[in-house]
Amino acid sequence: MREVFQSQLHEVQTRLVEIAEDATRIIEKATTAFNTSDVALADEAIAIADQTGEKALALDELVIRILARQSPVARDLRILVSALRISASLERMGALAGHIAAIARFRFPGSAVPSALTSTFEEMGQLDIELARKVTKLLANTDVDFAREIQAQDERVDALHRHVFDVVLADDWKENAMFTVDVTLASRYHERFADHVVDISSKVSYLTTGAWHETE
Amino acid sequence: MREVFQSQLHEVQTRLVEIAEDATRIIEKATTAFNTSDVALADEAIAIADQTGEKALALDELVIRILARQSPVARDLRILVSALRISASLERMGALAGHIAAIARFRFPGSAVPSALTSTFEEMGQLDIELARKVTKLLANTDVDFAREIQAQDERVDALHRHVFDVVLADDWKENAMFTVDVTLASRYHERFADHVVDISSKVSYLTTGAWHETE
Repeated sequence: MREVFQSQLHEVQTRLVEIAEDATRIIEKATTAFNTSDVALADEAIAIADQTGEKALALDELVIRILARQSPVARDLRILVSALRISASLERMGALAGHIAAIARFRFPGSAVPSALTSTFEEMGQLDIELARKVTKLLANTDVDFAREIQAQDERVDALHRHVFDVVLADDWKENAMFTVDVTLASRYHERFADHVVDISSKVSYLTTGAWHETE
Repeated sequence: MREVFQSQLHEVQTRLVEIAEDATRIIEKATTAFNTSDVALADEAIAIADQTGEKALALDELVIRILARQSPVARDLRILVSALRISASLERMGALAGHIAAIARFRFPGSAVPSALTSTFEEMGQLDIELARKVTKLLANTDVDFAREIQAQDERVDALHRHVFDVVLADDWKENAMFTVDVTLASRYHERFADHVVDISSKVSYLTTGAWHETE
């Protein structure tokens, strides 16, 4: 029975890693699409994002079946409940990255980013990509310790998010409202994406250390 | 044993209703704060929002304890898993309404809404308040059927959200970037708030009908 349960837990983990890999692919494509106005990549990102919801739903159903059949307690139960929360966060990461791609798509052939913010969004996108890759590794191998790096990178994303507002609200911002709307929303999506990585990381850390680190 | 379980389920429901009532109070105060630049109400909204996370966490811990002690299956298990998801949605609703209040706070004594969008945000805020009240009633009494009304009101919020962009992106929009940023984010928060009500409503409907209506 224990062996069956371990194999089921392993299946849950494998599926979480798969959805995390999808979220990574979406943000990789969305970032390039957004920063280089590549509409083909934007479409690819949106197509993958459209499937994330179903994958998360299927995973949740698997978790519920395991809960029903195995009636786990203690740490095993917490792993499964955490899997439900992590799957919800991964789904949102996919959706947010899809939204970034959608902005690039709407503005094509124009750019969604004015020159004053090009480097800011390049760095923000790169940080989100690195965060997605780290959280994927973390889910694949919960022994690795990225907590500090993830925290630092999330703080940098927050700083860049604030910088976007500083630039947009400065007297010398002369871009039209379309740019203002696009960069406001895109910056928010990048920031929320990183938040979800921090949430997942704190849940994985909880499972390995037993101490709940609420970081929201 | 069954009696204990029913009383525990009732406790979960009571706590969900309490958090939904908090979310309703936050959006009520936030809406007035946002539309009338009432900084005292904004502070009240933010203060309640700050406690929502802890209440949701305490509820989740209760659900996990019940899962561990009762090992429920079938419908009982699904009720508890749904409670976890509903609590996450309610927490986000509280946070989003808190963000709306925070915008009002930042802009005080100025207004966050230019005159061209006053009536749009009044209607959007009113719809979010009605949605929050309906979802509270739905959680308190899962027999009531608000599904169609909730769907219609969410669609109206989406239409208003698109209208905000139409206004902001029109040639005659002459407001400064601060207004553009504020209304873009506030509109997004209102729209996401309504989305969460739809999500919760579909989960409650699933529990009462047995058919999963994914509406996201």
